[in-house]
Amino acid sequence: MTTLPPPATDTLSGRLPPTLAGAERTLADQLAAWLALRIDEHALKPGTRLPSIRRFADDRGVSRSTVVDAYDRLIAAGYAESRRGAGFFVRARRPAGTPVRAGAAARAAPRHTPPALDVIWLLRSMLRQAPTSNQPGAGLLPADWLDSEIVAAGVRAVGRSAGTGLLGYGQPEGYLPLRQQLAERLAQADVAATPEQIITTAGVTQAIDLVARHFLAPGDTVFVEDPAWFLMFARFAAFGARIVGVPRRHDGPDLQVLANLLTRHQPKLFVVGSVLHNPTGSSISAANAHGLLKLADEYRFTIVEDDVYGDLQPGRALRLASLDQLKRVIYVSGFSKTLAASLRVGYIATHAAVAQQLADLKMLTGLTTAELPERVVTRVLAEGQYRRHLDRLRGRLDEARDRTARALEKMGARLALQPEAGIFLWADFGRDTNVIAAEASEQGVLCAPGSLFSPAQLPSTWMRVSAATCMNPPALRFLAEAMRSGGVVR
Amino acid sequence: MTTLPPPATDTLSGRLPPTLAGAERTLADQLAAWLALRIDEHALKPGTRLPSIRRFADDRGVSRSTVVDAYDRLIAAGYAESRRGAGFFVRARRPAGTPVRAGAAARAAPRHTPPALDVIWLLRSMLRQAPTSNQPGAGLLPADWLDSEIVAAGVRAVGRSAGTGLLGYGQPEGYLPLRQQLAERLAQADVAATPEQIITTAGVTQAIDLVARHFLAPGDTVFVEDPAWFLMFARFAAFGARIVGVPRRHDGPDLQVLANLLTRHQPKLFVVGSVLHNPTGSSISAANAHGLLKLADEYRFTIVEDDVYGDLQPGRALRLASLDQLKRVIYVSGFSKTLAASLRVGYIATHAAVAQQLADLKMLTGLTTAELPERVVTRVLAEGQYRRHLDRLRGRLDEARDRTARALEKMGARLALQPEAGIFLWADFGRDTNVIAAEASEQGVLCAPGSLFSPAQLPSTWMRVSAATCMNPPALRFLAEAMRSGGVVR
Repeated sequence: MTTLPPPATDTLSGRLPPTLAGAERTLADQLAAWLALRIDEHALKPGTRLPSIRRFADDRGVSRSTVVDAYDRLIAAGYAESRRGAGFFVRARRPAGTPVRAGAAARAAPRHTPPALDVIWLLRSMLRQAPTSNQPGAGLLPADWLDSEIVAAGVRAVGRSAGTGLLGYGQPEGYLPLRQQLAERLAQADVAATPEQIITTAGVTQAIDLVARHFLAPGDTVFVEDPAWFLMFARFAAFGARIVGVPRRHDGPDLQVLANLLTRHQPKLFVVGSVLHNPTGSSISAANAHGLLKLADEYRFTIVEDDVYGDLQPGRALRLASLDQLKRVIYVSGFSKTLAASLRVGYIATHAAVAQQLADLKMLTGLTTAELPERVVTRVLAEGQYRRHLDRLRGRLDEARDRTARALEKMGARLALQPEAGIFLWADFGRDTNVIAAEASEQGVLCAPGSLFSPAQLPSTWMRVSAATCMNPPALRFLAEAMRSGGVVR
Repeated sequence: MTTLPPPATDTLSGRLPPTLAGAERTLADQLAAWLALRIDEHALKPGTRLPSIRRFADDRGVSRSTVVDAYDRLIAAGYAESRRGAGFFVRARRPAGTPVRAGAAARAAPRHTPPALDVIWLLRSMLRQAPTSNQPGAGLLPADWLDSEIVAAGVRAVGRSAGTGLLGYGQPEGYLPLRQQLAERLAQADVAATPEQIITTAGVTQAIDLVARHFLAPGDTVFVEDPAWFLMFARFAAFGARIVGVPRRHDGPDLQVLANLLTRHQPKLFVVGSVLHNPTGSSISAANAHGLLKLADEYRFTIVEDDVYGDLQPGRALRLASLDQLKRVIYVSGFSKTLAASLRVGYIATHAAVAQQLADLKMLTGLTTAELPERVVTRVLAEGQYRRHLDRLRGRLDEARDRTARALEKMGARLALQPEAGIFLWADFGRDTNVIAAEASEQGVLCAPGSLFSPAQLPSTWMRVSAATCMNPPALRFLAEAMRSGGVVR
């Protein structure tokens, strides 16, 4: 079995193994990143006084020197300022284009002001360009990999048959025939769920947002994998949660580190990408899943299983929810990656009591989700087109992944593992990928540097590469050139 | 000009005029309602210790006796409990069906356990039943009042023409051709806005949620009209805001009360329903709008103008945004009430800097809104069908409003005013409308009692009646019967 190297945050030092010491080492970084995200998100506004070092240390249960370190980092990054005798204050929003996290990148490219390589930058860049070319960093398949006709045919069919069905608000739980289909699909994955246990959402992003709103109070702890899908870090930070990273291995979260962390923290939630994990492409093993669920039972935390890429895995993939049957596991997935992102159709499956509360919360925060796209997905699922589309997609991805892996290895990048399926390759480029991403951005190439996938957002030599968008010559030329121009950081 | 009587919260005492004294009288009620909403929304979870009376009084800038009163109310309502020596704690979620706010209703109908007449109850009830019959409380037009064919034709046309356009995420700001159309429509309403100043949202509910997330920090004050659209109270409370009601008059918010409140509070936001205000059906006058904007300039608060019913007003309605040109006014509207609610298409128009920040926030909390419904609305707007549909709708509503008003007056209910347009009549039934709503619920009739529209959620003799759904015999029979069975509370 392939061994996944230590996660992104540890690759810079190259010394500490991904043990408790490794995870704890970045506490000040995590604290600083957490504050920076809250400031980016306007949860902490310019001019706001930050808590005193003493109070913050007491509140968070960390040492004062950790808080001092974290504040130093915030000041260095331009997020905060110290006013003599008055304490620490959030600074006015930095001018657009000023780098705040990519310190190394800024020093390496002094002639231009590189973009701020933060989550907002990556998301904006991803959404600005269609992922058709020049986007090794894309998280979405290009349009010509998907099947626009099955979506369009579904839309036309709904237009012919909806009658007055689209005029009302619909149900807070979501369109019932879709939830019935989803229950059927979950049953095929060995997860027993009634339609009442399923709540539709505007993509997995809203699913995570609802779960966070429901479960988290300020000061609560959330465990995430390191590396992991970056958007959720900001979500949890916005609800005042403390985010702790658990190293991701080739077979799931590192259970030894997790067990150690659980002696010190009481997480409310642990978000795990079980199948074709983003960004590493790894899938959880049976033994890891079993061990993880035993720890969840022992320490009484809830697992959020993010399965948005799971449909790209052929055969019957192992999922946490099929072991646990939605007792401790909240399962979230959707159709953005495999059918059409702009339909914004995702869902949550959980036990009935939580489902009812999440439906109420969804209602209070937006009444209902749009029923038109849910009807379109229902129709596509009902007619078997989705299954055939997935079969084609998997075959094409297998080929592209192999070719991309060979190209990356040829240029000297090291792959964490050869994923069995899916879109992503997680590759070590041997130099700070923030620098590569900044250079790439100037040439119109979108890269997804490893720093963004780390809860501490530290520079990393790793990068997530999409097999589907990386095969065009300019992107490959750029990456090969980036490898040749070589080691700025290490 | 018709004079709108004092708002719902003052009608019970019948003594205090809607002045500063009247508004301040309910401070403990407001505090209790705010805490109750946070508990309902799980922002405060069962077992959480409430702040000490001293600390809460200091934090909120209110007297300790006000906090004592508020906690007493919470305990009486089953939301909290006092533990000797340890303080006040949030109680476990009450069993479904236990009344918490409708105390009078519970006492009046001892044989049955009436439903909890809170915001969640009303929303659930509204969304459970299609608003075709037995729903004097409906906020939405019945399907046969809307035009399903223009929506369905739009859906089919998008299905024929979208190509690969639906496969990507789309833009965080929303579908550009729709924003261009909205800019054009705003120009016709004398509001100059570029498409860059417009952000689409999943209905006005998400618009309010985004604005609240962007502007509010815990402890901030938000002014709302009293009565007003109830869903936003919970939204603001969820962000830790203090909600202060400003009495609504026939021509807009009571500016004298507002000026007095502004000497004591510094609101971040004031949400105003300018045209065909929900629930009273009143519209703001030119003098009131001008005076309100002067106060906003002087005291530097932002006005959120909720115009979701404005398209039902014939001719050129006066809007705050047309005076202010999106300097202090954030304009929100949408197509849920007039076209099709389940499309979930709403929008925010604001100045460019705020628009950019709201787009980033929308991206972080959900990436994008579904583009399919936005394309459908774009097509409907482009082809002039929407304008013709509105003309028909207004004519039909005029007739129904007149008939409903006569029926209500015949049964002895007193109308606040005869609205010039729109769906709603605001009527005084002379008895606690929580009691009427509880009785109605048992008979399958949905009423919208005045208590829900008041930020303090106090029992009220007022009720919002939909002209479009109230004309069916069972609903009218029920209301007439409710009037005859007479004054339980007063």
